[in-house]
Amino acid sequence: MSFADSSAVKALGDGRWGASIQPGWDIAGNANGGYLLAISARALAAAAGRPHPITVTAHYLAPGRAGSVTAHATVVRHGTRFATAIATLCAEGRPMLQATGTFADLDALSGPELLDGRPPDLPDPADCIAARPSEPEGFPPPFTAHVDLRLHPRDATFFDGAASGQPLIRGWFRLPHDEPIDPFALLLAADSFPPTIFNTDLPVSWVPTLELTVHVRGQPAPGWLACAFRTRFISNGLLEVDGEIWDSDAQLVAQSRQIALVPRAARS
Amino acid sequence: MSFADSSAVKALGDGRWGASIQPGWDIAGNANGGYLLAISARALAAAAGRPHPITVTAHYLAPGRAGSVTAHATVVRHGTRFATAIATLCAEGRPMLQATGTFADLDALSGPELLDGRPPDLPDPADCIAARPSEPEGFPPPFTAHVDLRLHPRDATFFDGAASGQPLIRGWFRLPHDEPIDPFALLLAADSFPPTIFNTDLPVSWVPTLELTVHVRGQPAPGWLACAFRTRFISNGLLEVDGEIWDSDAQLVAQSRQIALVPRAARS
Repeated sequence: MSFADSSAVKALGDGRWGASIQPGWDIAGNANGGYLLAISARALAAAAGRPHPITVTAHYLAPGRAGSVTAHATVVRHGTRFATAIATLCAEGRPMLQATGTFADLDALSGPELLDGRPPDLPDPADCIAARPSEPEGFPPPFTAHVDLRLHPRDATFFDGAASGQPLIRGWFRLPHDEPIDPFALLLAADSFPPTIFNTDLPVSWVPTLELTVHVRGQPAPGWLACAFRTRFISNGLLEVDGEIWDSDAQLVAQSRQIALVPRAARS
Repeated sequence: MSFADSSAVKALGDGRWGASIQPGWDIAGNANGGYLLAISARALAAAAGRPHPITVTAHYLAPGRAGSVTAHATVVRHGTRFATAIATLCAEGRPMLQATGTFADLDALSGPELLDGRPPDLPDPADCIAARPSEPEGFPPPFTAHVDLRLHPRDATFFDGAASGQPLIRGWFRLPHDEPIDPFALLLAADSFPPTIFNTDLPVSWVPTLELTVHVRGQPAPGWLACAFRTRFISNGLLEVDGEIWDSDAQLVAQSRQIALVPRAARS
């Protein structure tokens, strides 16, 4: 099933939007955080009546399991260009994710341009390391069947048990079967790559995200996205991951930042 | 009046928290965004029953004017270590700011440390440029009476009409009268400095923030905070501002990122 169908929402009335967390979009049983953010953002955008996310923040409250979910959305601002809405994504009435987003029509925005940065320097996708599901080991997880990830070989040595020593993951992203990448798929891309700390001496383990914010900066051109995720600060059991996502025209199309918990084994 | 008193909240019952936007905390009549975030975060923390913000996001919905405000708060998760709450800050029933935060006891968090970065290289505060209110010009704005800002001389040339050419603002922050800086004051510090784009050829004008997220990474030691705010990407009428706040022990105590609108004069 495509990303678009797997993240679709339908109006249930009274500000409620229904969706299904599809099986297989998980890491060790927990649905991917970017996928959950994309579902939530589709509900928020529909509620706000604007086509594109500009800035979306999720606080993760409980693991997401496959099955029906409902987003309860409220529009808190409906301006000329921007509209803001909040939603709680719930499964069986229990909150799983709290989302806030501001939405607009990206195609109606314009202004001067400054780019102090460039896409990460990546080998051709064919010369990168594909992350594909491994059974029965479970790593890479089932989720990687739904995204086409190609990691920079220098950042992929952890697959063989040898961390690079730099909490940096660079690589290409696209959707399988040439599915077009819309701004909601950028939210997915922002949380699709393996954790940066797999390239440190911290344990290779679940890295729970407390909060993830994605800024969508432009409509992506067709083709591979060049992505880089970096952690600079680990302290007090917390770490941030900063992401940049560039399209095939070398335009920055999204920035992301999340704050996550250092794996429990390293904290105790 | 101190920052603590100016940002205090009191319980009104039924998840409502009252506060007052004090006169003089404004830029051209609009209350400072970090000040509004701090008020909101105090309400959220009180609702969540946890002392410190870990990650707080505000979406700015309408300008804040001096006067009474009410935060309507809802706790959406109450975990062992972390609690998450949302609030809408309203004046006369009209939403001004939508906030979401995750809170914990910073003193109970610990773990391994990695610091890939260092505080900005700043001259002594006495050798920096103080931003103090100017009347009747209105720039620097009245707000600067409530914070003690000392800008790096190389980043302060815009005061004399000569932009540095780099959208970078570095400087020291403290509260007047030796008021201690708690984690809520870090939220204030994250939005206290002049806009980075004052150091570009864009118009020196109001830069409306759509969304601001602050990660509090540690309890600040007493003394000046060393701060750096940088913009790398301006596109589609949007720009991000990334902030780092370091304490006098050279510990990173907060990271911030906001997305803001390019001033209207430059968009049309």
